[in-house]
Amino acid sequence: SVNPDLGSERQTASFSVERLTALLDGGTEQTRIRRAVVEAIESDPVFSRENQYFQTQNERYEAAVRKAVHLQKKMHEMGWTENGPEYKYIYRALSGDVAFLLHRVFMRSISVLGSDRQIAKWIPLATQHKVIGSYAQTELGHGTYLQGLETTAVFDTATQEFILNTPKISAMKWWPGDMGRSATHTVVFAQLYIHGKCYGIHPFIVQLRSLQDHSLCPGITAGDIGPKMNFEHVDNGYLLLKNVRVPRENMLSKFCEVRPDGTYVRQGSQQINYFTMTTVRISLISDEVLIPLKKACTIAIRYSVVRRQSKLKPGEQEAKILDYQTQQEKLLPQLAAAYAFHFTNDYLQELFDRGYREIQRKNFDMLPELHALSSGFKAMITQHCTAGVEICLRACGGHGYSLLSGLPSLYTKILASCIYEGENTILLLQTARFLIKCFMAASAGQPVPPSVTYLAAVTHGKCPAKNKLDFFSPDIYTEAYQHVAVRLTSSTAAKLQDLIQSGVKKHDAWNQCTVQLVQAAKAHCHYIAVKNFAETVEKLETKAGIQKIMKHLCDLFALHGIFSNTGAFLHDGYTSAAQIDMVTAAYLDLLAVIRKDAVPLVDAFDFTDQSLLSALGSYDGQVYQRLYEWAQKSPTNQMSPAYERYLKPLLHNTLSKL
Amino acid sequence: SVNPDLGSERQTASFSVERLTALLDGGTEQTRIRRAVVEAIESDPVFSRENQYFQTQNERYEAAVRKAVHLQKKMHEMGWTENGPEYKYIYRALSGDVAFLLHRVFMRSISVLGSDRQIAKWIPLATQHKVIGSYAQTELGHGTYLQGLETTAVFDTATQEFILNTPKISAMKWWPGDMGRSATHTVVFAQLYIHGKCYGIHPFIVQLRSLQDHSLCPGITAGDIGPKMNFEHVDNGYLLLKNVRVPRENMLSKFCEVRPDGTYVRQGSQQINYFTMTTVRISLISDEVLIPLKKACTIAIRYSVVRRQSKLKPGEQEAKILDYQTQQEKLLPQLAAAYAFHFTNDYLQELFDRGYREIQRKNFDMLPELHALSSGFKAMITQHCTAGVEICLRACGGHGYSLLSGLPSLYTKILASCIYEGENTILLLQTARFLIKCFMAASAGQPVPPSVTYLAAVTHGKCPAKNKLDFFSPDIYTEAYQHVAVRLTSSTAAKLQDLIQSGVKKHDAWNQCTVQLVQAAKAHCHYIAVKNFAETVEKLETKAGIQKIMKHLCDLFALHGIFSNTGAFLHDGYTSAAQIDMVTAAYLDLLAVIRKDAVPLVDAFDFTDQSLLSALGSYDGQVYQRLYEWAQKSPTNQMSPAYERYLKPLLHNTLSKL
Repeated sequence: SVNPDLGSERQTASFSVERLTALLDGGTEQTRIRRAVVEAIESDPVFSRENQYFQTQNERYEAAVRKAVHLQKKMHEMGWTENGPEYKYIYRALSGDVAFLLHRVFMRSISVLGSDRQIAKWIPLATQHKVIGSYAQTELGHGTYLQGLETTAVFDTATQEFILNTPKISAMKWWPGDMGRSATHTVVFAQLYIHGKCYGIHPFIVQLRSLQDHSLCPGITAGDIGPKMNFEHVDNGYLLLKNVRVPRENMLSKFCEVRPDGTYVRQGSQQINYFTMTTVRISLISDEVLIPLKKACTIAIRYSVVRRQSKLKPGEQEAKILDYQTQQEKLLPQLAAAYAFHFTNDYLQELFDRGYREIQRKNFDMLPELHALSSGFKAMITQHCTAGVEICLRACGGHGYSLLSGLPSLYTKILASCIYEGENTILLLQTARFLIKCFMAASAGQPVPPSVTYLAAVTHGKCPAKNKLDFFSPDIYTEAYQHVAVRLTSSTAAKLQDLIQSGVKKHDAWNQCTVQLVQAAKAHCHYIAVKNFAETVEKLETKAGIQKIMKHLCDLFALHGIFSNTGAFLHDGYTSAAQIDMVTAAYLDLLAVIRKDAVPLVDAFDFTDQSLLSALGSYDGQVYQRLYEWAQKSPTNQMSPAYERYLKPLLHNTLSKL
Repeated sequence: SVNPDLGSERQTASFSVERLTALLDGGTEQTRIRRAVVEAIESDPVFSRENQYFQTQNERYEAAVRKAVHLQKKMHEMGWTENGPEYKYIYRALSGDVAFLLHRVFMRSISVLGSDRQIAKWIPLATQHKVIGSYAQTELGHGTYLQGLETTAVFDTATQEFILNTPKISAMKWWPGDMGRSATHTVVFAQLYIHGKCYGIHPFIVQLRSLQDHSLCPGITAGDIGPKMNFEHVDNGYLLLKNVRVPRENMLSKFCEVRPDGTYVRQGSQQINYFTMTTVRISLISDEVLIPLKKACTIAIRYSVVRRQSKLKPGEQEAKILDYQTQQEKLLPQLAAAYAFHFTNDYLQELFDRGYREIQRKNFDMLPELHALSSGFKAMITQHCTAGVEICLRACGGHGYSLLSGLPSLYTKILASCIYEGENTILLLQTARFLIKCFMAASAGQPVPPSVTYLAAVTHGKCPAKNKLDFFSPDIYTEAYQHVAVRLTSSTAAKLQDLIQSGVKKHDAWNQCTVQLVQAAKAHCHYIAVKNFAETVEKLETKAGIQKIMKHLCDLFALHGIFSNTGAFLHDGYTSAAQIDMVTAAYLDLLAVIRKDAVPLVDAFDFTDQSLLSALGSYDGQVYQRLYEWAQKSPTNQMSPAYERYLKPLLHNTLSKL
């Protein structure tokens, strides 16, 4: 039975939830396939996550390995293949709670960096899990700056081997997933030395553990790096190498080879390599970033219509907390952002597919733009979504703080996305470097990639809005965002030039502009996200109320961005204070409008109760029953030795009856 | 041996660290006492926190109980008393990781709400731990709105007892600390019914567990609410009451009494009660909020001078990450905020002490102002500090994400402070209500409390700053903050009146203004924090460089607030865009200045390595060694059954040698 406070929210939906779900999935057929995968996974008890919040790190790891092994069997049973349409839904259905994800990175790096011969040898072994792979790049002392890695691989002409060492503690490999306890092999990135000369970072396949008994190989010290904020199911590991010898054939040699006599040969173009990073950054947005935000919105919004607290009107029943303006102002912008970034992700995917086709035709022209957009959006979206999940958590008060709400684990997991696959500040500075370069080029009348042609465009000196309704016009707000992005880019470019012209060295000048460069990169991404959302809405079918509600969300996403950052829009007078007041009024009005459809809008994300794993967010809204039932199962409700050991002696003198 | 990259930072301190420590402690004698307490606690192995990051929730609870019991012994041994000067340092020295904190709340509520007879009976029992108490107010369905509590206490004239019930699942008590497993008694808040009439919420002492064998008493269902984001050491509990009878004497009756015939008598003033909440909100700022931020700053700043990554200048060594402007911009404003709020806390303490003296003389005039300030600052400081800890965590990249950095547990713990003892949004709205009331009064020429007299003051129409150096003048920026606070309060008051005059009902109008009311309340607190910091700096001795560095931090705190929220200052033209550019330039300049003293400034907080419990933040800066040594002790480096169970069968067909 559905909690009536939740049920009533569904009766007044202004649009068809089922059609919106299909739109998000990319068609009804996709929805059907996704649901079939979810059904198959969730009905299989081996994949259960039921006790997850009660498990130790060791138990989580064991469950993840069990699931990974079982998944092979399941795929075979279901006829799912790695190239089939079901594949992309499996990870989502498992909520990412499975081992051997780095095994896939191991395989991909061999496919991309290995010679045909290496691929022929290793890929079949890996596919059949006859080896378990990892990917050992990051070191204790080195993360983002690859050139700084300290692990060495010295070529020994006499034995035709590479001798690998982690010469200092800071050179120790640290973080690689699946390496702490599971992997038999890994790809180690090390500085290649031949005859005393350093040739920079290269990848080497290294065996870590015996295939007989899983014991560590000679010269290998490895283990688990211990507790983290989340990812308890992953055995992130450390690795010390002491004179570990691998045969010459173990250096992945698609692009670089060491001949038997020690001659170093570079072959082919490495540009495709950069493309791999782009791929990873784009693909993580959907699985690791959007899904957690969508789940958090689902949980917080469902809870906010079930939770009643205090009174809006004297004499009435306590009010649903979603009826308070402050609660709407916390949650609804996160909902709008989830939709906005869903469409940004579609945009990036499309751009990426186009780029990939070009690259296959040996045209690398799109690479810089793709790199800049994927870096900037990875940073911007992970940042927004992490903040969004945290807002959802806090908006649920005490119950949000319980692990049983599901929100803490969503938060602690999504937070990592701000750090891995490129730390966000560093990524934004890469985007900024591209922007400055393009701005200079555009100013000089040179051609620039499509996403940045606007940098050369002249915008109106003033925002033309005359009343608050004008701010529901996508042209008005999109142009305002564009104006701010141009202003921040051009003013930072000017500051940079001024500094250099005044005699400051180039790298110092760059460093002194980085805070503002980050702002410019964010403004650029925000502008594109708003513009893309508005264009997406325009293309939607007008039926079934979907375009209308998406338009509201697009407006909210745009106006929330202005409302939260009014200074950027006021600064040069493009927007007047009176217009900012209109934005505020329009924005607050919109909250009350979207609030009516809030529950249908999260229902459309179509998460099952099992995948939410939340006492607050279930489809039926029976929040309090679920919290109570669940708490009773907690291991903290088992008998504790604390009573016999400490409490009994303490209380032993007490009167037997007070 | 100290890491030379850290050591060199200490050699160039512009001030005496020891004198700054004494200033923060409130005198050298206080520093001496604090260090003696820390020394005594940290040298006692029973209080060790060494394995904390590796322990389960059950293990954490048991350790906390063990420590609480041992603490009694320790205090006796050391001659420490609850009224002695050492007492306030004990909790800090234990990093709060101890049981029976709610036992203290149990005692305080009896002292405040109980009759002399009740005090005489219960306080000695509690003091000697012959009973263990808790405090059962919050229910599954009810938190902030006390009148909504559903637990009932019906007076039975025949037996002279109260019959307590939690009639619905939402009435179940939920969250009370020490109640899940430890407490023998608790104070239950319930709706009092006499002869069918409800008299509202009253407190009742209820026995939960047998004093013989700790089994639950008849009619009691209780247990632990399970895993939370932090506070693993606390047994937050649930409680169901089914016809639980307690004698008439168990209703705490200082203010209200039920006579044997059922006559209800109210006596004395309850105003002192509200003062209790004020006390709690102010006292938590120092222990639960400032200390975590100071620790996070210590960890992140020490790490940022040890961590070298990428190059600032081509050809040079990799740079300390604190030399990057973006890293300074993340960490140094948090450091400035830690100092700012330290002095805000002093201000609140002083105000509170004055208020307490007045109240003892039966003068309750200061109560509304105290309530408004303690509510607003509790919300503002918890919010800023929580965000600050999160920024510190993220600024340490991957290593910050490891529990061994200490940062995740600081974050997950401080986050709770935004929710407990009054949810922040609700508290800010209480401050806003006071502001609006005082603004109306001041506008009508009526007297208002000292902290809000500025609402009636006329400020210059324009900020008089002419160049960036002017923004290092406290008068200039304090007045800008004041101007913004007045503007936000007055414009929201006007909106509220407009709505009401246009026919919107009062409660609806209020709700429609709440987003802006929250902004006004924040601006008010921010203004007072800036003003107080500036006044504190002025009063500091000019010797030993302390005033100078505190002045820099004060400037940074103020300018960061403007830089992060330029729209508020630009809106009505009080500050021009050119002036905002001056602020930005002054702010960025200041980062480079304060960066030089960053390590001495965190050293002055004087945390021991044991209390930081951080592989990144130790005094010697041997980050990588510590991470490695610590990780090796993790239970995840024990043999896992996963190999025999899952990996071995998977790998069993593999070639024995590749």
